[in-house]
This record gives sequence, structure tokens and C-alpha cells, in this order.
Amino acid sequence: MFKRIIIAVSVLLAFGAAAQGQALRESQISTYSVQSAILGEEVPYNVYLPKGYDASGTQQYPVIYLLHGLYGTHVDWATQGHMKEVVDELIASGECRPVVIVMPKAGDPDINNNWNGYFNMPGHSYEDFFFGEFVPAVESRWKVRSDKGHRAIMGLSMGGGGSTVYAQRHPEMFSSCYSMSGWLDNSEPDANAPKNKFYYTSKAVHDFSAVDFVMKADEAALARLRTVKWFFDCGDDDFILDLTLRMYQAMRLRGVPAELRVRDGWHSWEYWHTALRLSLPFASRNFE
Amino acid sequence: MFKRIIIAVSVLLAFGAAAQGQALRESQISTYSVQSAILGEEVPYNVYLPKGYDASGTQQYPVIYLLHGLYGTHVDWATQGHMKEVVDELIASGECRPVVIVMPKAGDPDINNNWNGYFNMPGHSYEDFFFGEFVPAVESRWKVRSDKGHRAIMGLSMGGGGSTVYAQRHPEMFSSCYSMSGWLDNSEPDANAPKNKFYYTSKAVHDFSAVDFVMKADEAALARLRTVKWFFDCGDDDFILDLTLRMYQAMRLRGVPAELRVRDGWHSWEYWHTALRLSLPFASRNFE
Amino acid sequence: MFKRIIIAVSVLLAFGAAAQGQALRESQISTYSVQSAILGEEVPYNVYLPKGYDASGTQQYPVIYLLHGLYGTHVDWATQGHMKEVVDELIASGECRPVVIVMPKAGDPDINNNWNGYFNMPGHSYEDFFFGEFVPAVESRWKVRSDKGHRAIMGLSMGGGGSTVYAQRHPEMFSSCYSMSGWLDNSEPDANAPKNKFYYTSKAVHDFSAVDFVMKADEAALARLRTVKWFFDCGDDDFILDLTLRMYQAMRLRGVPAELRVRDGWHSWEYWHTALRLSLPFASRNFE
Amino acid sequence: MFKRIIIAVSVLLAFGAAAQGQALRESQISTYSVQSAILGEEVPYNVYLPKGYDASGTQQYPVIYLLHGLYGTHVDWATQGHMKEVVDELIASGECRPVVIVMPKAGDPDINNNWNGYFNMPGHSYEDFFFGEFVPAVESRWKVRSDKGHRAIMGLSMGGGGSTVYAQRHPEMFSSCYSMSGWLDNSEPDANAPKNKFYYTSKAVHDFSAVDFVMKADEAALARLRTVKWFFDCGDDDFILDLTLRMYQAMRLRGVPAELRVRDGWHSWEYWHTALRLSLPFASRNFE
Repeated sequence: MFKRIIIAVSVLLAFGAAAQGQALRESQISTYSVQSAILGEEVPYNVYLPKGYDASGTQQYPVIYLLHGLYGTHVDWATQGHMKEVVDELIASGECRPVVIVMPKAGDPDINNNWNGYFNMPGHSYEDFFFGEFVPAVESRWKVRSDKGHRAIMGLSMGGGGSTVYAQRHPEMFSSCYSMSGWLDNSEPDANAPKNKFYYTSKAVHDFSAVDFVMKADEAALARLRTVKWFFDCGDDDFILDLTLRMYQAMRLRGVPAELRVRDGWHSWEYWHTALRLSLPFASRNFE
Repeated sequence: MFKRIIIAVSVLLAFGAAAQGQALRESQISTYSVQSAILGEEVPYNVYLPKGYDASGTQQYPVIYLLHGLYGTHVDWATQGHMKEVVDELIASGECRPVVIVMPKAGDPDINNNWNGYFNMPGHSYEDFFFGEFVPAVESRWKVRSDKGHRAIMGLSMGGGGSTVYAQRHPEMFSSCYSMSGWLDNSEPDANAPKNKFYYTSKAVHDFSAVDFVMKADEAALARLRTVKWFFDCGDDDFILDLTLRMYQAMRLRGVPAELRVRDGWHSWEYWHTALRLSLPFASRNFE
Repeated sequence: MFKRIIIAVSVLLAFGAAAQGQALRESQISTYSVQSAILGEEVPYNVYLPKGYDASGTQQYPVIYLLHGLYGTHVDWATQGHMKEVVDELIASGECRPVVIVMPKAGDPDINNNWNGYFNMPGHSYEDFFFGEFVPAVESRWKVRSDKGHRAIMGLSMGGGGSTVYAQRHPEMFSSCYSMSGWLDNSEPDANAPKNKFYYTSKAVHDFSAVDFVMKADEAALARLRTVKWFFDCGDDDFILDLTLRMYQAMRLRGVPAELRVRDGWHSWEYWHTALRLSLPFASRNFE
Repeated sequence: MFKRIIIAVSVLLAFGAAAQGQALRESQISTYSVQSAILGEEVPYNVYLPKGYDASGTQQYPVIYLLHGLYGTHVDWATQGHMKEVVDELIASGECRPVVIVMPKAGDPDINNNWNGYFNMPGHSYEDFFFGEFVPAVESRWKVRSDKGHRAIMGLSMGGGGSTVYAQRHPEMFSSCYSMSGWLDNSEPDANAPKNKFYYTSKAVHDFSAVDFVMKADEAALARLRTVKWFFDCGDDDFILDLTLRMYQAMRLRGVPAELRVRDGWHSWEYWHTALRLSLPFASRNFE
């Protein structure tokens, strides 16, 4: 039975290729890069293209920016988060619309000697790069819509914090934001600590505290926050659960609607892998 | 087809009856009562008996005490929570062991003029009744095991607080405790408030604060708390979510393992109905 | 705490009323009726209106037709299926768009002496009524969109079969169809059986077999079927599971995409209550 | 914050090591092998040991045999199924008891030139090896219980069929059996086909048809089958879904209780990865 199936599938694929021209017959993940003048380096990223994507066609897709965590790189969501398996399934069942998913590099396992983080740090203005160079490059390179109604952002841990702060500071850019196990705040690092790169990473999380942002927002800022759909998700055994709880309490206190889920689990790829089953339909139904 | 099915089922039931004697062919919920000397009144309760329960047989079951909320009575879990439908299904699939479930009355919709609450209040020592009269009456009346390893307690809102405090103060009695949307703490009521019965209900929730209990527990008390399996579950849109979050943070701070879930929803029967799908397997797998 | 919350909520509701004019502050279920010339009787139906529905406003909603089963009436989904509790929650979380849900009467517990069924039977042309009188009456009475892209149909057991056959025979009317525990086919009733009304119900299910329809469809009919999104859902312990499995196998054989789910449970309201958590998001995301 | 956590965890681990002696501080997966006289080769297998496992201790664990599919080997469940991540989480939450999980090699990606399959084939008596050499070797090497009440078997595709047939033919060995996307039957291979090793694999699936086994079972055999808890799980988009449906229909027809689930998905690692969330609690609650 298996052999006959394989033959049948091969024939179908051959016909499919003839019929569809350049359209992808299967989803694919590939690595590309953007040359950044701001950072003075080439920044790699992974991109997920859905089945049917046609580089020479007219169809444009919504786009999701999917951010990795501390110690991580642009390949993690594919190699450790197995994102392709979930996205393929959710698109096939209709729970997520066909989307392009972009995963930029903003870190490195050697956190002391290499940059990690999504914020502007001394000599490494990643946020400037992201909005000034990266998003424009993505939107000119791929068949994606370039409006708030068709952009979403999400990420894990450092990337959950990054997503939240990006959507706070650029609410006109994103329809929704989903934080997984988010590193949403940090205490002020010790001024006597060695000034290695991790010092600046943790200082930036303090300086760009997502919790403080919402607590200190004035009415106009709150109104802008309410134009984004927010979702916070963290495991009950996660060592940074408190950050998500404080964040949600701040959102509630300031009257900014948000979803909260605490599921079973901890700071792990299994948690983030399963989070995709919530985050992708959430982003999808909040696209225009 | 439907008619033939009905006939087939009837025949099966008739044979079933002959074969099984007194054993219940379907689960059932009935109302009974206990005459309380402590409270000076007759206290009604509902009891769920599983399919196969045999009043003259030798099989004994684990027992779950399932508590209602403020404004409520012993019938609510059946009439508004539709508990029978869920329990039947979970027992049939093996996700919950066959159990007896006991639902005592500890409230009334007229909260100002009638007693609500599980704690000892002036002139209404409900906790004394519960442990001194009710549990013994249940255990002599029904085929239930009478040891910690085969007792669980759970409840919603006021009953979530009641369950938690009962298991805190009597950890030798229960293998597990599951709080749904628990009323786990309360501010001190205004001393100038009218001294109606609701005043005493809310004062008791303050006086028997579940959060304070764990925060003030000494090492010996913490060791006792660790003999119980704890689960806290509350909706993200629930107006008393903060109590559950504070409770969990206290448990974590004091090193008492517990589960936490925040699911979508609010202070509603839909939330508690779906909570049964988590709480019953949880109780079941923590029976000996 | 509870009392203060109640006061706070009351104040909010009062402001809400002032601000929103006629818009509903809470969802509601009400009973209405349509006078049918075709059936020669008044046909009652229940209608669910979402929070914010404004009879004098300009907003129009998608509409879902939600069908009951044999022995049932238009009130069952509210009283036994507790549909309001689920719909409110799914709309609040965004998993279902705000919708109007219409539940017509097509049955009666006395199945031998009263009509049950969605098909044209001798002297009782319910399908003619449904499409010729009922849908037009609903669309003129309520603020609903009246195009395929904003209509969905779903139902349980006899109503699962009814939904499927309606969408098969009127694919230009519905964007999606969801069958729960569907009565999708029936053997030919014994010609010597008493010709009571149940005889005609079961004969109609035979004559309008949903399985036969797809098996016998020509290419043009298959193309029309493919314009509808299909979902079949049935419990593993359901006595009519085979019908759903045969239906899905027929759909697959003829190349009409469909979803299938077999979940734990049987022919029960608990099954259909939980089915709403799948069926409403499915209908919602398949609206235009 | 992260740095301090890392230090704290390291200190805890050091203390943990001192306190617990040889007990594993984290679960682990390792590769071992059994020298088979029957097969004339060394057969590798992976073994998952839970946190706390102590090779020199007295605690013994239930054991699950977890089988891979066609083209696969003993490492697949770890490298492609990410089984460790799920098992760790389910054990931590109590949804699965601590277990030892054994994953033997019974295949190879080169299916024409190398053996694949769990049955006795000419010159390759894998079933004899499994029960005569492998299980005894596992039970003497690891701290596992060696009775029906503490053994379960499960697997995917070819391993789903293997699990089912093993439990059918050795019901005295297993308390439960869970088939994922099972290759449960096969048509008779063409007698003129080349007699490569895949010919014998597919012929064995035909000869040891799990569907035929239950259809042809006499009353005594059916009684033995009823001593095992059965679960069949297959994706609605799986090309071999029909096999699971026919299997379940056979079980129902012959009166052998079983669970059936059809979830969203196809013949993929994502399906099997998520199946573990059902299969492990199922096996766990059916241990004695």
C-alpha cells in the first residue's frame, strides 16, 4: 500500500508542478539576510513561505514576525520549535490563514561577548535596524501586505518582551501581539557589574520595561495600545511567570483589553511549540 | 434505525437489571439531608452515585466533596453546572475513576438574611458541622472510603475558597484540592457596615484568608500542606483573578508545589462546567 | 468585595445604556415565530442576538442556522445545549465573530403523531418552508447579511443530517456546514410499518440520504459541493458513528474536502455543547 | 535576572546530587543494544529514564514499549518525535506516572534491502526476538515491573500495527495498547512482485492483519482481548485513516471496548508528537 501511495503522490506532484508554474508545492523555510548600515553587519533571517506562494504571482500574504529568545538565533524556531509542522497543519485546517513568517536573528549563545536583544543598546541600535531597515527589506523582498491590518508580532522569552515593546512603541504597525513566557521587565543591573554585552541586554530590558510602559502611559498612549490585540501566555512552572502576571495586571488596571493564559509547563521549547497552536489562530483572526 | 436502537437498548437494560441486582444501571443524582445538632437545622445535600454503585455490595468508592458558591445551594452543580454529563463521560472513558460526589448546602440566594459560607461564623459553626457531623454522616451512609487517600475536595468561588481552607486546616483529610475562581481572601469589612449575614460571610473570608494561611505557615505547617496536591484555576476575565494569582505566588514563595491554570473565561457556569474536565482527572489520579 | 463589584458593574451598565442607545448590553435569546402558508401553521424559533446588537442601527451580522434533533424543538439548544454560555465566551475572546444564531422548530417529542424533520414529506414540505418562507423572514426581520459568504448551517443528529442535506442541495446559500452526530442516512423503512409520522421522518432520511447524494453527484454537482466548507464531528461511543464515517469516506472518495473529528463521547448534550467550541470558530473563520 | 537564576539552579543541582546519590537529576535518553541469537545481530534500542531513576535503588517503574514506523529506527521518537519534552512535562504535572520507555529498532530507511517490521518474516523472526529475547533483556537490565499491570505498548504507523498485533497475540503481557495512525492491515502483495525485503514487510502486515484477527476471534479470544485497554488514534487527513476506522468498526462489532479519536492532521511527526499527550496518560491510568 505504501509503495502505491508513493507512486500516486509522485504523479500528482508532477502534474501539480506543470499546472502551478512557480507556486510552491510545499511550504518551505529558507535563510536570507539583510545588509544593515545601522548595525554595520549582515543580519540573517529565516522565512517561512506557505504552500502556494508564488514569487512571480500577484497574491500577497499577511506577515508574522516571530522572535527568538536569549542565547538564540534565527534558526531556533525551525530547528527547536518545529514551527513548520504546526504552521502547515493549521493552514491546512483553516485555523490560520496562509502567511509569511519572518524570523530575524537578534542573539547568540555567547551572551557576554555577542549582542542579544531587540532594543537600542550603545553601539547596537537593533530597534532602529528592525523598523528602519529590516521591515522595509522584508516588505520589498516578499509578497507581503505592508499595513497594520496584515502584520502581527510574537515571540518567546526575550522575544516575547521584544514583541510586546515593539507593539507598544509602534502600535500603528501591528494588528496583534502575542508574548510567550515574556521577559517583560528586569531589575536595574548592578552598576558595578562588568560592562559586557549581557549587561547591556539586561539593562535594556529594564530601561524598556513593558510593564512600566503601560503603567506610565497617558490617555493618548492607552488609546493607541487599545488598537492592538494583546495576548500573554506563560507556563505555571516558568521561573519568570511573575513578569507575565504583573504585565497582565498592569493591562487590566489601565483598561487595555488583553488575553491571558497560564498553561502547564515551563521555560521550554515544548511550551513554545504548543503556544503556536494558540498564537497563530489568534494572529490570523485579528488580521483584517 | 432509532426505533430499533431503542428496542435493543431496552432489552439490554432488562438483562442488565437481572444480572446486576441492585447495582445502578445509570448514574444518578439525588437529594438527601443530615440533621445537624451543631447548626440546629437539617442540611440538605446532593449526591452523585456512579453507574454500578450497589448499596448492598462490597465495593467502596473514593469520594469528592464539590462545593458551590455564594448565593448558591446544593443543587447548583447539577442544575447549572450540569456536572452529571461531564462525570458520566469522564468515568466512561477512564479519565476519572468511578466516584461518589457529595454536594452539601452552605448558602442561599438571599445572602443578607441567610447564611452563606463554609467557615465558623458567630452562631453558625459550619466548619464544625462539616467535619464533625457531615463527613461522618456521608461516610456511614454511602459506600465510600474514609481515608485521606480516597477523599478530594473542590469547589467554585466561595466554594473554591472553602475547599482550599478546608484542605489547609485539615490536610490529613484530603489527597487533593482544586479551587475554581476561588474567593481566597477578602479585605477586612467596614466595622460600621450593617451586621447582616453577608457581613459575617465576608468577614470570615478575611479571617480565614487562604493566602495569609500559607504566608504565615511555619515549617511544620508547610510540610503538612505538601501532603496535599493543589490546583488553582481561574478565568482571565474573572473579576477575582487577582486572588488566584496572589494565592499561587504565595504557594510558590513558600515552596508548596501547586498547579495553576488561567483559561479563557470569567466568573460563570461555563467556566466551572469546563473546569470539571481538569479537576476530576486531577482528583482521580491523586487518589491512592 | 462582591458587593462593591456589583455596584461597580451596575454603574457601568447604566453608563453603557446611555452611551449605546438601543444596543444590547448583554446577548439575549428570545422566541419569535413565522406564519407559514406552506405548512399552514405558525412556526416558532429561537434567536440569539449578540451583545451590541442594535435593532435600529446599521450593523449587519453573519447568521448561523442551528438545528435541533429528533424529539426536539427550537428551545433545546438554549435549555439543554446551553449555547448562550459558549457563544458569549467565544465572541468575547474573538474566536467567533459576533453573529445572529437562529434555531427553528422542526420537531416534537411525540414523534409518531407530530412532524419531525427538515425535508419535504407528504403534506409537510418543511424544506420548501425553510428556504421559501423562513430564511426570507429571518433576513427581513433581523440585521443579518443575506449572502452565501455570511450564512452558515449546523446541527445535531437529525439536525446534523438536515444541515448537510440543506448545504448539499443549496450550496449557493451557505459558506460552511457542520454536522454533529449526524443522522446522515437511513435504511429504507419497512413498507408494512404503520404510516405514522415517524415513518415519514425516517423515510425522508432514506430518500434524502446525504451519503448517496455525494456518491451519486456528477462533476458539476461536486464542483458546487466544493464551494462549501464541510465538517463532520461524532462521538466514538455514538450509536450512529458509522453514518459519519461513511459520509466522510464518501466525501474523500469523491474529492470533496472535509474535516472529520471523532471525539470522546456519545449521543448526548455534553457532546453537542462541547462541539460548539469547534463549530462556531469554524463557521466564523469561513465567513467572508 | 537570568544570570542569577542560572547560578541558583547550579547550586540546587549540586546539592541535589549530594542528597540523592545515583538518582537521575534529569530524565535522560540513551542508546543500548541487545545481542539477539534469534536474529543473529545486535539490536539497538533507546531508553528513556525518568528523573529520579536510580540504578542502584529499589524503586521499580512501569514500562512502555514505544514503536517506530516504516523507514524508521530506534532514535526517531527522540529526534523527530521529541518525546522527551512531552514525557517530562506530563510526568511533572502528574498526568503520567514516572515510567521507563523503551524504543527498539525494527526498521531502516532502505526498506527494500533491509528489514522493517515487528512480525516473524522468513529468516527474520522479529516477534520471537521481541518476546523471547528483548523483553527479558529489558526487564533484567532496567528497574521495571514485569507484569501485565505495569506494561503498555504503543507506536506509530507500522509501530501502531505492531503494537496492536502484539497486544492481540500476547494480551497477558500488556495492560493497554495505543495505535497511532496504525498500519493495521494490508492487501495481499502481488505474487509476481520482486521478493525484496519490503515485499515481506507488507506481506506480514497482510498475514498478521489486526482487523482480521478481531473479526475471526472466537469467544475465548475475545475474552482475552477484553483484558487489554485499546485506543486507536488517526488523523482525518491521513492516507491510511480507513484502516483505523475499519479496525474500530471491527472492535465494536465484536464487542471489544476501545477508544477512537480522529484529530486534525495527517501521517506526520506533529500528529504523533501530540498523540503522546493522549497516549501517555491513557497508559498511565491503566497501569495497576
